[in-house]
Amino acid sequence: MEPALLQTKDERGVVTLTMNRPASFNALSQEMLAALQAALDAIAADESARVVVLAANGKAFCPGHNLKEMIATPELAYYQQLFAQCSRVMLSIQQLPVPVLARVHGIATAAGCQLVAQCDLAVASTDAKFAVSGVNLGLFCSTPSVPLLRNVPAKFAMEMLVTGEFISAQQALERLLVNRAVAPEQLDAEVAKLVDSILAKPRAAIAMGKELFYRQRELGLAAAYQLANQTMAVNMMEHCAQEGVTAFTEKRKPDWSR
Amino acid sequence: MEPALLQTKDERGVVTLTMNRPASFNALSQEMLAALQAALDAIAADESARVVVLAANGKAFCPGHNLKEMIATPELAYYQQLFAQCSRVMLSIQQLPVPVLARVHGIATAAGCQLVAQCDLAVASTDAKFAVSGVNLGLFCSTPSVPLLRNVPAKFAMEMLVTGEFISAQQALERLLVNRAVAPEQLDAEVAKLVDSILAKPRAAIAMGKELFYRQRELGLAAAYQLANQTMAVNMMEHCAQEGVTAFTEKRKPDWSR
Amino acid sequence: MEPALLQTKDERGVVTLTMNRPASFNALSQEMLAALQAALDAIAADESARVVVLAANGKAFCPGHNLKEMIATPELAYYQQLFAQCSRVMLSIQQLPVPVLARVHGIATAAGCQLVAQCDLAVASTDAKFAVSGVNLGLFCSTPSVPLLRNVPAKFAMEMLVTGEFISAQQALERLLVNRAVAPEQLDAEVAKLVDSILAKPRAAIAMGKELFYRQRELGLAAAYQLANQTMAVNMMEHCAQEGVTAFTEKRKPDWSR
Repeated sequence: MEPALLQTKDERGVVTLTMNRPASFNALSQEMLAALQAALDAIAADESARVVVLAANGKAFCPGHNLKEMIATPELAYYQQLFAQCSRVMLSIQQLPVPVLARVHGIATAAGCQLVAQCDLAVASTDAKFAVSGVNLGLFCSTPSVPLLRNVPAKFAMEMLVTGEFISAQQALERLLVNRAVAPEQLDAEVAKLVDSILAKPRAAIAMGKELFYRQRELGLAAAYQLANQTMAVNMMEHCAQEGVTAFTEKRKPDWSR
Repeated sequence: MEPALLQTKDERGVVTLTMNRPASFNALSQEMLAALQAALDAIAADESARVVVLAANGKAFCPGHNLKEMIATPELAYYQQLFAQCSRVMLSIQQLPVPVLARVHGIATAAGCQLVAQCDLAVASTDAKFAVSGVNLGLFCSTPSVPLLRNVPAKFAMEMLVTGEFISAQQALERLLVNRAVAPEQLDAEVAKLVDSILAKPRAAIAMGKELFYRQRELGLAAAYQLANQTMAVNMMEHCAQEGVTAFTEKRKPDWSR
Repeated sequence: MEPALLQTKDERGVVTLTMNRPASFNALSQEMLAALQAALDAIAADESARVVVLAANGKAFCPGHNLKEMIATPELAYYQQLFAQCSRVMLSIQQLPVPVLARVHGIATAAGCQLVAQCDLAVASTDAKFAVSGVNLGLFCSTPSVPLLRNVPAKFAMEMLVTGEFISAQQALERLLVNRAVAPEQLDAEVAKLVDSILAKPRAAIAMGKELFYRQRELGLAAAYQLANQTMAVNMMEHCAQEGVTAFTEKRKPDWSR
């Protein structure tokens, strides 16, 4: 049987994770969650990784949890473990030192929509559709609401959660859930543009900045600035900034090869 | 004299609260605030209630506090009590286990605009106008700024607060204060669509989800996920989710009648 | 040599701070930061000041830090002091009792873009361009990310920070970073409209409201309301509100001259 998650890394450090259970529309089974966790843990330890693209094979991006699996064990402890496992994957995306970009086509619902919200960046095909539709089955998308409300304005997040209705890629763009909505045939080119832009920057600077970005969000303004000051001072002492700023003042391109 | 607040509940559990002092444009007098509080408290205890529509009779939705009443007692203790009373109404909207939807026509200013911001959802007629206009009278809309800033992006919230100027329903939609802006003759139909969508979902799932939605917003990401995990596990153990998910896997409609 | 920062105050209390180092595109040198800090401290103590317009001479608004200065002292303690100095200026903008409005033309990058984000209001010329471009030099814009993420939706803030790419004034408006994007020849008129609107309100009400606005943002909803209740009660006891509300009920214009 093919692996639940395909993983490739090119010579530039672009890691592509492709959910690969098209028959189940790439549902987040425990197998899939374990594969994602293992992949994210490995990437976190891989200094040659530069950016992650999260993609999917088949018609859909991801419909959320595997419902057949879920209903088979109606026990509180099982559900607690399952949602903790899923939330750990989500937290790992945020904690990863490299940006994670969702490449979304087809449907992205429930925890599948949550994946999109949790990624740092998202590019959607105009054929993509988004919903936090658990409420249609009597299961409010509580965990998806966590990253959703940190991206989508409050009234629109609530609307999606209580109606469970689909929004189009264009609406997802207007609701600030995705960075781009492009025609299906432009999806890879648009992902590549963002990937190339990230690759052109030093890994260390982005790693420090991404960590600071999410940490300062949880603080008041004065504490946020205090933490950011320290991050910038440390960043400025790194080779990447010393070389980058020097090159700029010397009107040449920075040499980050060493 | 007619009651300050009309209250109806249909057989489906749709509670309509209609502010009913058209001569004062439905100002939030102490009478009106007490009537809203009593109604919200009763709805909180009524398990047959499913959704609340907050509407208004006459030309206006609500112009905020009753200024004649306010100016008659220029005492700090009185004002402290008055604003505490008003904020308790606002908090009760958020704490209610069912969604509260503002149906807005005409003007919604100061604490009237705050009501719209505080509701979970809002549908506006294109004849509606919104302002946090207290500053025009030397009274900055400080309490309205609380839900406003949790809906409207910071620079636009500040602009409304320091200029006191009206924005149209279309601008309110663009500024993310309302979910819809529709022609006056479509207002009730648009409200009904959202209401019907909510009614099609189990009450218990929405109650758990709404509470979690606002609680997790005040937490950091890891704590938010921890709380959401527990909510989802408990939700999954409820009949509504067990039946909903089972029905989905059996390709039939859920039976939530029992 | 001309001062780094020009300062004028008209008879209405409109303070215009004009960054005045066009040869360096108004970079935030230590000289410029010190001049801004001194000006902000003086305005904070000046009860006749009513509103601040932050503007710039020359082709650019502000390109961020002075890179030649920064690279000349590659020491951690120096960078810590420099970023602390810059963040103190940013915090002083928020703490000022009067609104601060950025008048933006040309480029606003890195800490220059941060200035725009940190101001209470911002009006941009359509010739303005915005970027948090430090990452292009290996220095992630960590301190700019603090106000950026409090204005611009998360995925778009992250996109700007990791790509370092410019966005237009129109995009800045759509991304909620600025209140207006207008043709260059309308820039001053549009700034004047907002300034005039602020001047028409009592200083005391705006001072109390601005402080409350940012303080309540860092609190949970119940605590935010509690603080706002107290602010409104105190505001209501002030002459400005007593006169403003009385005048309204008497259908006359308020007299705030005394």
